[in-house]
Amino acid sequence: MQNFTFYAPTYFIFGKDEEKQAGKCVKRFGGTKVLLHYGSGSVVRSGLLDRVKTSLNEENIACVELGGVKPNPRSGLVYEGIELCRSQNVDFILAVGGGSAIDSAKAIAAGAVYSGDFWDFYQGKPVTKALPIGTILTIAAAGSEGSPDSVITNENGMFKRGASGEALRPAFSILNPALTQTLPAFQTACGITDIMAHLFERYFTNTTEVEVTDRMIEGLLLAMIHEAPRVIADPDNYQARANIMWAGMMAHNNSCGVGRGQDWASHDIEHELSAKYDCAHGAGLAVVFPAWMTYNLKHDVNRFAQLAVRAWGCQMDFSNPKVTAAAGISALKQFLKSIGMPLTFAELGAKAEDIEEMAHTACYGNGRTGTIGGFVPLGEKNVVNIYRLML
Amino acid sequence: MQNFTFYAPTYFIFGKDEEKQAGKCVKRFGGTKVLLHYGSGSVVRSGLLDRVKTSLNEENIACVELGGVKPNPRSGLVYEGIELCRSQNVDFILAVGGGSAIDSAKAIAAGAVYSGDFWDFYQGKPVTKALPIGTILTIAAAGSEGSPDSVITNENGMFKRGASGEALRPAFSILNPALTQTLPAFQTACGITDIMAHLFERYFTNTTEVEVTDRMIEGLLLAMIHEAPRVIADPDNYQARANIMWAGMMAHNNSCGVGRGQDWASHDIEHELSAKYDCAHGAGLAVVFPAWMTYNLKHDVNRFAQLAVRAWGCQMDFSNPKVTAAAGISALKQFLKSIGMPLTFAELGAKAEDIEEMAHTACYGNGRTGTIGGFVPLGEKNVVNIYRLML
Repeated sequence: MQNFTFYAPTYFIFGKDEEKQAGKCVKRFGGTKVLLHYGSGSVVRSGLLDRVKTSLNEENIACVELGGVKPNPRSGLVYEGIELCRSQNVDFILAVGGGSAIDSAKAIAAGAVYSGDFWDFYQGKPVTKALPIGTILTIAAAGSEGSPDSVITNENGMFKRGASGEALRPAFSILNPALTQTLPAFQTACGITDIMAHLFERYFTNTTEVEVTDRMIEGLLLAMIHEAPRVIADPDNYQARANIMWAGMMAHNNSCGVGRGQDWASHDIEHELSAKYDCAHGAGLAVVFPAWMTYNLKHDVNRFAQLAVRAWGCQMDFSNPKVTAAAGISALKQFLKSIGMPLTFAELGAKAEDIEEMAHTACYGNGRTGTIGGFVPLGEKNVVNIYRLML
Repeated sequence: MQNFTFYAPTYFIFGKDEEKQAGKCVKRFGGTKVLLHYGSGSVVRSGLLDRVKTSLNEENIACVELGGVKPNPRSGLVYEGIELCRSQNVDFILAVGGGSAIDSAKAIAAGAVYSGDFWDFYQGKPVTKALPIGTILTIAAAGSEGSPDSVITNENGMFKRGASGEALRPAFSILNPALTQTLPAFQTACGITDIMAHLFERYFTNTTEVEVTDRMIEGLLLAMIHEAPRVIADPDNYQARANIMWAGMMAHNNSCGVGRGQDWASHDIEHELSAKYDCAHGAGLAVVFPAWMTYNLKHDVNRFAQLAVRAWGCQMDFSNPKVTAAAGISALKQFLKSIGMPLTFAELGAKAEDIEEMAHTACYGNGRTGTIGGFVPLGEKNVVNIYRLML
């Protein structure tokens, strides 16, 4: 295990109807004037936004609204939010929605107290200062409700990039699993895939003797494998939703990723897909991950076999662990298909002729220097080959 | 899953030599005058205390010392610490040691800013205010470095009781696994047992559909079962020590205990043993847990069988799950014996003639009202029978 620091001071309020605590939570963390940031009309139509506003009102917290966050959130709205925060003296940002609304809120929070261009943070500058953020989560997926990360797409070039920093951990996050019950099956499955992808990115490591985090990751994967078919079969299954929601937070707050190298090339490879085709991030990951695994299996056959045995219940082939390792990847593909996820470029609407360009951007775009991935460093040609496995 | 809140804002610094960060950490959290609280001479002899004092000095942090914390820490020293904090205007408490030093520091931190008797908190009053606490951990066991709990023995009646409250979460905790390498095998094994006991207390629940926390608990148990023999065979195994140390924190910060009923009768039953015979808490738990499990197996055979299969690798007897459940308890006993833990009253130095009195105190002492345990509520007679299983 490597030396590390871990600081996750988010206050979580979990359960039915807890969005009513929004006002009290903002007050607890010192907010007096809130930017209420959200996405599509669904939080309006469902009445959630009204309930949140009532709760803010009850605590005499003033409120400015900025809706319109899109999936794969864009830089344009971030600039708008930053201006709004400055002109209206906003001191707290409350995101209502999924990872997109939260990530956009984080970008605004960092940009509002920074004299330069907020995009600096998405080119590697660590975020050390930001307005405090609260979240009311409506999609279990991104884990942004408990993470110090944010991913934004820059409309100037359509680069999709991440920022990170302690200051981006939300002050509080309200997780009501019932709010996710109205999600369409496809979006639910995308969220499940994203959560599992966050675990895979941490699982594939060259750091040895990390049994405790290995076992925690495997445990969370097993819970997801158990709950996913239950929630796909019955979208109103509150308990399955609740388990998935907590797993989504735990998968990405890094308590199971500490002290070990991580990979993250699959996210980089996927970000090109969702930046180019505006596909759902989770759907993109479903296409990318089996291909990435197949391509990199030879790098550490035993680690892939371990995952196959412990998470997918494959029988270990002791005379040929590669067989077991490959069986794990097949099991993942079968699982993803069973919950309605795509597995190919065609299903995603992606095009073979864009592969070279995407591989180049993934490795060199927006200041990158040629390789991605911590487990297996991949160059442009490797990335081309991985994209080709998705055809 | 039940509704819950979760707030664990401790800043963790994990790894070799990190105790050198002590001064910077105290400064980060606003401390200017520290009560340095520790136990036996080992932290003095090893030079650890000097390194910590040097680090405080470098940041111009003033320092008052209070050593002498004993295992099963006592109320007398807590009163002394509270007086010292008040007379010396201490604004930060830094514990150097294991759970005893940390729990004692927490009691002082709560008492120093409270006008009444600190023992009120150990009779059920929640701790909402306390001086900030930092810890430098030297024993992986109690999990107090990341928990909101503290256990103190009141010398007036020798009651061993717990207090809890958000204000008791340490502001920071420094975890250097190398500091635990000098621990004798017996103390190491006691720590391992305590960590596993914290997981068992959460695992045995009547709350249904808690797959995510079940799987996390099982994952942490599997890691402990893997690492325990490695560290007993080779006390200098840094990596095994590191895995155990992080598992110890995760086992008790409650991220795997949220949203579910928990039991904790075994801890209550053990506290009578360590209060009366001053035995090591972990050793007491090794004697109590198999007996508690055997007595309560019938309450939920499938849950015991699930633990046996998932943590101990027992084969499921589908025609008679009770056989599997019992095999899990046997596996636990064998494991505890293999790491040098006692399994009987005699090995602990406990006496059969004290059983009635201990059972009475466990159920009625210090304000209790007759039953203990959340999974299976136990009355005095049940507790007598459980103690008898330890003979």
